[in-house]
Amino acid sequence: MIQPFNDEYFMKQALEEAKKAYEMGEVPVGAVVVSNNQIIAKSHNLTEKLNDVTAHAEMQAITAAADFLGGKYLKKCTLYVTLEPCTMCGGALYWSQIDKIVFGATDEKRGASKHNGVYHPKTNIVSGVLGEECGKLIQSFFENKRK
Amino acid sequence: MIQPFNDEYFMKQALEEAKKAYEMGEVPVGAVVVSNNQIIAKSHNLTEKLNDVTAHAEMQAITAAADFLGGKYLKKCTLYVTLEPCTMCGGALYWSQIDKIVFGATDEKRGASKHNGVYHPKTNIVSGVLGEECGKLIQSFFENKRK
Repeated sequence: MIQPFNDEYFMKQALEEAKKAYEMGEVPVGAVVVSNNQIIAKSHNLTEKLNDVTAHAEMQAITAAADFLGGKYLKKCTLYVTLEPCTMCGGALYWSQIDKIVFGATDEKRGASKHNGVYHPKTNIVSGVLGEECGKLIQSFFENKRK
Repeated sequence: MIQPFNDEYFMKQALEEAKKAYEMGEVPVGAVVVSNNQIIAKSHNLTEKLNDVTAHAEMQAITAAADFLGGKYLKKCTLYVTLEPCTMCGGALYWSQIDKIVFGATDEKRGASKHNGVYHPKTNIVSGVLGEECGKLIQSFFENKRK
């Protein structure tokens, strides 16, 4: 059976969000939250525009998804994010009790998986979906910045 | 010399914020951000009212302080918070590069100090300021909830 709505499909949507961030001069990280194969929240990093270190793509996606659902827990949802969540976002995802987190590129420096027990024990973590493409976008952003 | 603006003084202001949360049926945690002996942000937990797991006192305080200062870093600021920051808030405080964090009660379950490297290496951490009073407020909240 053809399954059009797989992890790659939704990661592509997150990548589209990341590209919007890139064009705005923001570190290009994008995210979507999916419930029942439907995207219920889309976001990208806005730390520069909002002058706010907490405005990571994931944080906004959590807030928007909870707003859509009318409840603060995301128990049956999946977050797709182009970069591995940092400790802040991993901690927020813990509180959300989200069912699944799928990320693209790995964050060697601030990735939440550097610490045990940041994620909720019931949350499934999938890594490396379109990882190369997601990582290249971020690399290219920082290379351009250095020029 | 009498120093009226010490850690206890500012923690009392954070406690006043926590009491506002208590009265609203929110887990009673309050915070203030101080710069040059001036309170530049006040907040308390609003996760229930906003239906948002990210609406911890610290997260709002970081956002409000950055807004006041017109820049996203809180390098010369101190955060006073009645309960030890969780991993999410600790991760956010890392990004803020805040100078000092003073907390009241310890959080044995989700405190950021359970993990090494959540806080910024340049951030000074002071614990236990009015810790008993801060902890009792939270205890009393959960005892009342169980009734």
